[in-house]
Amino acid sequence: MNTGKGMGFFFDPQSIAIIGASPTPGKASHVILDNLRRTGYNGSIYPVNPKYDHIDGMKCYASIADIGKQVDVAIFVLPASKVMEILGGPVENVRGAIIISSGFREVEKGELLEEELKRIAEEKCIRIIGPNCLGIYDAIYGVDTFLVPVEQVKRPKKGGLSILTQSGSFAVLIMDEMATEGIGVARIVSYGNKVDVDEADCLDLLAEDEATRYVLLYIESVENGREFVEAASRCAAKKPVVAIKVGRGEAGMHAARSHTGALGGKYEIYRAAFRKAGIIEVDGYEDLKDACRVLEAYNIVDGNKVLIITDGGGIGVSMADACEDLGLDVRRLSQDSKKRLSSKLPAFSATDNPIDLTASAKDDDYFTALEEGFLNGYDLAIVTVLWGAPALSTRVIDGISEVQNRYNKPVLICSPGGEFTRNKYRLFEEKGMPVFSTPEAGVRAAAVLIGKGTVRDNMSKGAGPWI
Amino acid sequence: MNTGKGMGFFFDPQSIAIIGASPTPGKASHVILDNLRRTGYNGSIYPVNPKYDHIDGMKCYASIADIGKQVDVAIFVLPASKVMEILGGPVENVRGAIIISSGFREVEKGELLEEELKRIAEEKCIRIIGPNCLGIYDAIYGVDTFLVPVEQVKRPKKGGLSILTQSGSFAVLIMDEMATEGIGVARIVSYGNKVDVDEADCLDLLAEDEATRYVLLYIESVENGREFVEAASRCAAKKPVVAIKVGRGEAGMHAARSHTGALGGKYEIYRAAFRKAGIIEVDGYEDLKDACRVLEAYNIVDGNKVLIITDGGGIGVSMADACEDLGLDVRRLSQDSKKRLSSKLPAFSATDNPIDLTASAKDDDYFTALEEGFLNGYDLAIVTVLWGAPALSTRVIDGISEVQNRYNKPVLICSPGGEFTRNKYRLFEEKGMPVFSTPEAGVRAAAVLIGKGTVRDNMSKGAGPWI
Repeated sequence: MNTGKGMGFFFDPQSIAIIGASPTPGKASHVILDNLRRTGYNGSIYPVNPKYDHIDGMKCYASIADIGKQVDVAIFVLPASKVMEILGGPVENVRGAIIISSGFREVEKGELLEEELKRIAEEKCIRIIGPNCLGIYDAIYGVDTFLVPVEQVKRPKKGGLSILTQSGSFAVLIMDEMATEGIGVARIVSYGNKVDVDEADCLDLLAEDEATRYVLLYIESVENGREFVEAASRCAAKKPVVAIKVGRGEAGMHAARSHTGALGGKYEIYRAAFRKAGIIEVDGYEDLKDACRVLEAYNIVDGNKVLIITDGGGIGVSMADACEDLGLDVRRLSQDSKKRLSSKLPAFSATDNPIDLTASAKDDDYFTALEEGFLNGYDLAIVTVLWGAPALSTRVIDGISEVQNRYNKPVLICSPGGEFTRNKYRLFEEKGMPVFSTPEAGVRAAAVLIGKGTVRDNMSKGAGPWI
Repeated sequence: MNTGKGMGFFFDPQSIAIIGASPTPGKASHVILDNLRRTGYNGSIYPVNPKYDHIDGMKCYASIADIGKQVDVAIFVLPASKVMEILGGPVENVRGAIIISSGFREVEKGELLEEELKRIAEEKCIRIIGPNCLGIYDAIYGVDTFLVPVEQVKRPKKGGLSILTQSGSFAVLIMDEMATEGIGVARIVSYGNKVDVDEADCLDLLAEDEATRYVLLYIESVENGREFVEAASRCAAKKPVVAIKVGRGEAGMHAARSHTGALGGKYEIYRAAFRKAGIIEVDGYEDLKDACRVLEAYNIVDGNKVLIITDGGGIGVSMADACEDLGLDVRRLSQDSKKRLSSKLPAFSATDNPIDLTASAKDDDYFTALEEGFLNGYDLAIVTVLWGAPALSTRVIDGISEVQNRYNKPVLICSPGGEFTRNKYRLFEEKGMPVFSTPEAGVRAAAVLIGKGTVRDNMSKGAGPWI
């Protein structure tokens, strides 16, 4: 990988050195060593630590210079002062460094140290990811520099989602959740304080990356606004880019500052920048999970007309509310459609939008309603299935899926409920239809799929130009 | 139960008649018969249907008059026209009716029929729940008129939550979810079109009801605003009353109209009324579930200062954001507290609010941070535990619980993550601490517990007086 302004090598390195390697199980550097071997990474691995000759049967080097060959990626898991000392020495054979260590800009008086790190890296032409980060998880090339054991945090399978994040804890979390949800990942980059490699570099790389089908961006702050918007625009033109900006209010911004030393800046500016770049912004962690689940199933929809079908009036009303909160187009059915549906559906159905089939719903009623909607201009449907309706059978799942396939328009299933209901989720998912357990989650997913995102419009007041 | 303007008998009836009883398994009236016997209801049950002599070995009566004894509650599961015919005849021995049947105000031209129903009921002094409803689920007295089979929708155990709802599908849903979550229920009333018994009657009843510890109100519309506010105020003065108003925007309001014939009215008016009555308003179905889970664990807090503790900076920032969105007070720690914590916590911790223990967190750090916060004026804490921190053990759960008990202030656990994490939820819950799987859910629960609710303040513009 040679795009991304010359930092593609981080993802498919020929050689990796672990600086501060340790033979002690459980120690961060040992976890990383273990993980690299577990992933089946097939380049060279060089443990570096003057205290040891061998670690786990591998030769251990006293210094980076001692390796005597090019090191594509040197991973630093040492105190900040030690990192500076080593980088100040002979490191001519190092191409890139992942500096996991904390103790830079995010702590008091760490700013100067980080400035010095930046200077050294530029002087010595070493690309840097971090400091204060977890580095890279690459499911495609089998690179895993995350220092959390697989027993505690599952690794996701190979797939189309790539994740860029300032926060390491976020990287771990979302990785773990995606693994549990069965969503596949291409590449995850945790770049922490971004002394060098930043979101713009990574976005350029992911834009060209065939393994990446959609991108998730976790942002506390962006320093180079113009570069970011340009790179994000290029990437978003090719694949969906979903972003969450955290640290939006005063308390959040303050927290972000002590987290990655992020400067923040007015939220409204970010919001405008996202819009300009064609980024789909989501409002919170929940929304972000909904976004991944829906983008895993479907492509972005060219249109914004949402049809709601339900067999429970109350949930239908809740969904209509949620749609309006997010500014989705839930226009009513045409008079013609209403007339046709009235003749076919149960007596007390509401043939509007929502179409309420009531608890008298039969399997066929769902197919009739869905087909009528798709035939008449709706771009996607949120279909609520409450299993309390006595006439429903699991045949309804096959039939909905059949209509979905025939019209090639997304169907999101909303199916709140208890045990009986939850046991049916798998059946929908086997047909490729994502299931959401609350009306709000289903609507958030729809808002992502039509490219609108989930930030309520009344939060966008005062959006200004990007600075 | 003789409060609630003389409708308490609905909850502990001495006798129940099922009008339109059927011997056919799966038929609505048969499901109700089954359910009543399953709950162990120990009053008299009278099936009524001129077509049968016996149903399931019970004597079946040709008409209500034929029963020849007082019927406390007559349950109607017949077409609307048939209901009217029967109520127009001899029904002097009926005290109250639960009219499950649809086909009244919620359908075109049903308004007149409902007016007629109202007139008959008044004339014959019969109290009515419904029409277009599910009636009553009473875990205390064992009354269950819900026509959904227990195989499909679990019934919750006995407990302190009572639910009032216009929507039957909502009643079923939330019942099912509560059963699955292990939350106990006292009484559920689904009153549908509210031709007679309405939320004000029920609120007065629940205010005096010792079995009810907190109340959940699902509202599409309120007709008698003043009565509602007065009854709600009386109830909210004694126990927490949580409400959701659905049908808030144009689409939602339209959907509500065809659902229970609700008239709606401006949302801002409801919002002001809730505030006046001391009702805790929640924003959606998700919020409502969060509210139940937190009220199950803790009482409302007299104070609004929220402390956030985390071992993942990113999630801390997200929580701070979510707190600010809902207007919670996440004030920073005092200089004294900061100083004390800095000397005790890991080197790179942020000793602010959020207190970020970082991935270096040890069990004891949580106890130290929590105790410092509770000692210094915080009213509740949201504690994030990300199990990626290598030094954490399950001992952290006991210790947090110990501090929680000692200070008797609520601790909400926020623990997003995959399988490893989710398997730990039970351990927290066994200690009585509710676990939330996203930062947003934890913050929503906190907003409920401090009595603020989860509707974002920027939605409340233009709130006017109750009409």
